[in-house]
Amino acid sequence: MKFKVKDMDIATGGILVAILNVHDAKKLDLHSGDRILVKDTGKEVVCVLDISESKKAVPEGKIGLFEEVLDRLNIREGHLVNVGMTGKPQSIKHIRDKLFGKHLTYEELYHISDDISNDRLTDIEKTYFVAGSLTNGLSHKEIVGLTRAMVNTGKRLKFNGSTLDKHCIGGVPGNRTTMVIVPIIAAAGFTMPKTSSRAITSAAGTADTMECLAKVELSEQKIKSIVKKTHACMVHGGSMNLAPADDKIIEVEAPLSIDAEGQLLASVMAKKYSVTAKYVLIDIPMGKSTKASTLREAMHLKHMFELIGRKLGITVKVILTDGSHPIGNGIGPLLETEDVMAVLRNDPLAPPDLKEKAVMMAGALLEMTPKYKKGTGLKAAREILESGRALKKMHEIIAAQGKNKKPQLGEFTYPVYSKKSGKIREIDNLVIAKLARLAGAPEDKGSGLFLTKKFHDKVKKGELLYTVYAENKFKLDLAKDYLKNNNGYMVG
Amino acid sequence: MKFKVKDMDIATGGILVAILNVHDAKKLDLHSGDRILVKDTGKEVVCVLDISESKKAVPEGKIGLFEEVLDRLNIREGHLVNVGMTGKPQSIKHIRDKLFGKHLTYEELYHISDDISNDRLTDIEKTYFVAGSLTNGLSHKEIVGLTRAMVNTGKRLKFNGSTLDKHCIGGVPGNRTTMVIVPIIAAAGFTMPKTSSRAITSAAGTADTMECLAKVELSEQKIKSIVKKTHACMVHGGSMNLAPADDKIIEVEAPLSIDAEGQLLASVMAKKYSVTAKYVLIDIPMGKSTKASTLREAMHLKHMFELIGRKLGITVKVILTDGSHPIGNGIGPLLETEDVMAVLRNDPLAPPDLKEKAVMMAGALLEMTPKYKKGTGLKAAREILESGRALKKMHEIIAAQGKNKKPQLGEFTYPVYSKKSGKIREIDNLVIAKLARLAGAPEDKGSGLFLTKKFHDKVKKGELLYTVYAENKFKLDLAKDYLKNNNGYMVG
Repeated sequence: MKFKVKDMDIATGGILVAILNVHDAKKLDLHSGDRILVKDTGKEVVCVLDISESKKAVPEGKIGLFEEVLDRLNIREGHLVNVGMTGKPQSIKHIRDKLFGKHLTYEELYHISDDISNDRLTDIEKTYFVAGSLTNGLSHKEIVGLTRAMVNTGKRLKFNGSTLDKHCIGGVPGNRTTMVIVPIIAAAGFTMPKTSSRAITSAAGTADTMECLAKVELSEQKIKSIVKKTHACMVHGGSMNLAPADDKIIEVEAPLSIDAEGQLLASVMAKKYSVTAKYVLIDIPMGKSTKASTLREAMHLKHMFELIGRKLGITVKVILTDGSHPIGNGIGPLLETEDVMAVLRNDPLAPPDLKEKAVMMAGALLEMTPKYKKGTGLKAAREILESGRALKKMHEIIAAQGKNKKPQLGEFTYPVYSKKSGKIREIDNLVIAKLARLAGAPEDKGSGLFLTKKFHDKVKKGELLYTVYAENKFKLDLAKDYLKNNNGYMVG
Repeated sequence: MKFKVKDMDIATGGILVAILNVHDAKKLDLHSGDRILVKDTGKEVVCVLDISESKKAVPEGKIGLFEEVLDRLNIREGHLVNVGMTGKPQSIKHIRDKLFGKHLTYEELYHISDDISNDRLTDIEKTYFVAGSLTNGLSHKEIVGLTRAMVNTGKRLKFNGSTLDKHCIGGVPGNRTTMVIVPIIAAAGFTMPKTSSRAITSAAGTADTMECLAKVELSEQKIKSIVKKTHACMVHGGSMNLAPADDKIIEVEAPLSIDAEGQLLASVMAKKYSVTAKYVLIDIPMGKSTKASTLREAMHLKHMFELIGRKLGITVKVILTDGSHPIGNGIGPLLETEDVMAVLRNDPLAPPDLKEKAVMMAGALLEMTPKYKKGTGLKAAREILESGRALKKMHEIIAAQGKNKKPQLGEFTYPVYSKKSGKIREIDNLVIAKLARLAGAPEDKGSGLFLTKKFHDKVKKGELLYTVYAENKFKLDLAKDYLKNNNGYMVG
């Protein structure tokens, strides 16, 4: 049946959507969510059908197409297209099975990952997959299967020799250890091609922070040549199509803040497996606002990461760290960059907590390799950092990725003072991150917080706790407004 | 913060959607699915935020609004509106709790129903509620609570005296007993204000069929006056806002064909409770294509309906019937109307299966009331039907609702002949319904199937099994095309 195209002038950023008028849909016995084939000479795409109840959006005889569909078919408003019927993707049956408690095979998980990464499933269908996996749980076999499936439905990067990687499951502002660890490991002669994410709910991701120094959106070919030259890189993994199904699953978890364990494990391990990592160190910060709030939870996660690692042929070491308060002095891309560079420069004012955590982790990573015996890694890592070799390596990596002009610190500032005297008993990670975000981080790289006082410090009433920096006044006002309720510090 | 309105020229038919450009959203630390307040002088609405990644759909500084939002604020393209932030509805927390296995209280279920019926939840959020209820189950208390909550977040109709009602959980083509039962019960002096649905996946709903004879979209006031006059009505319940949350939950169940038991029970009972029914007869057809495919499942459902009924103060009787093949001769609104009228007229050609099932059910309903002793209902029902009193009552009801001109039978026909000789061992309900739908039912009222041969009949090779009727040739061709695979009859 032929329909005239209406350009809806709307993009989903993913799934292919076509809209028919309710009367046309009824004639063809089609329902919202059904799949239809939209065909033009020589090309066809499968779209998810939406129904327009009104003539205004899509009148009878017309088909409303979203930007992604118009682009793929390379057609415009007014064009005539053929509409045919097609069944729903087979993966919907597997999702239904998971919801009803069935264990899924690798092949079934592959179908699901493939349809998700190719935007063939609706939000409702993806949500049922997440919900079924959460409530019925994923077996160890399913987690491994999902990890492999997510990797195999994306791109996989291979490098010469055995590569090292690290991951932190997040929740701690300022925890920018990666940018210290990678230069140490590379200076020690190992390969560490690090792909990182941008911030989702935090004030800065490693990719946002590294971008203050160098380009991070690079092609696969460029990354390979950088790693060949410097043994390392610190780039944004988002656009590289590594386990793309994972990112799309995370999108439907967000509305209910769901962190299903099986999916978390598969998500982390898929990214590592995508870059063919051999030795992986995982940092599980424990604290109220992190994913592991009790030792029991943390130990369970540790056990699971190690087990999944073994099944994938990846050596995994998990460390539990204190995630109850921010690390370093700066929160926000530029301010965190300054902390990192101070540590690498061996600046006496560099935040010792960031330095010590990074050295400890670099040491642990070194000891995972056969080259370093137990007890020798920490010393080696410290030596590489303190001798300036790590800083030199960092400059090499920056030059190879392409130097960026460092952004300016936000010119609008607001100092926050203690309302009483005493010891700082708690710093609320969530409040600190929210403030930095309201001030403009991570998009405004020069926005964020600089913490003058840290956890366990003593303060007097009226003493400066931290300063908020913002690139524009409006955003500083948003942060100030939020500060009326809570400044995140508990002094007593 | 102020934004210029862009009319997106799109309607969801429900949820209020606003779109911001990705850069504006980042500035305000807003994410897809967040709630925002869109304010114009004196008015404000809470919208769900969608993010536009492209300038084309929504550029920076603009806010794309869907039709529902423009209508509520009574504004147009180019208008300046204020955007403020607001938290997510509290019900999202309850949905999350359900997903994690918590039992919900009536108050929590009320919040959820209220937000669903007022279009305040996204598809993803509603899906999590369905998935959580399905996988963790709903306790008896929760089913009763959800039933009450769905009723109390909609309209409730009250009539004088105790009213009777019936419900069939569906799956059997041609099973149009309601239109025979209602006139019998009303002729016996009882009140039976019947609200019915239109077909969703079947070839005709009672509302679609009754519409061949009379108006079915009526106001609450009009319905009350009809019931006062005739003791009965047969109208479409869809637009009456009876338990509206129920309809919206069903929408997100459809993509995975989910029929969660708790939600099915709450759905049926909510519609009955909304019209303050006192005696309710429920028909559970058993068969491959119905909701109860085994006796065990049917008995369990029966038990649950009776139990929920007791808790709501509704007397419920459940009968299990044969749902393995179609009932009556006609499939499709007009053809089913003809069957019903033939039964009411005591036409010797009236389908005996439809007549006997309707009389049996009417008898059972009568016996639920104190007026009829056990064993007297069936006889009374048959007497009312065969004396012509039911037909007279039907004409009264039609006149009161407003007579419709009867549609014409589809002029395009296609006879389907048996490919071999033997006994009809099976008729596939799903194939029969699909054929009638492809031919145009229920929208084209004169389209459908007329079955010449029924279950257990003997046929000779080349003998007519049924005729497909369609109002237009294109649709007849769709049905013919489908017939290449399967005609739904198993002869052998």
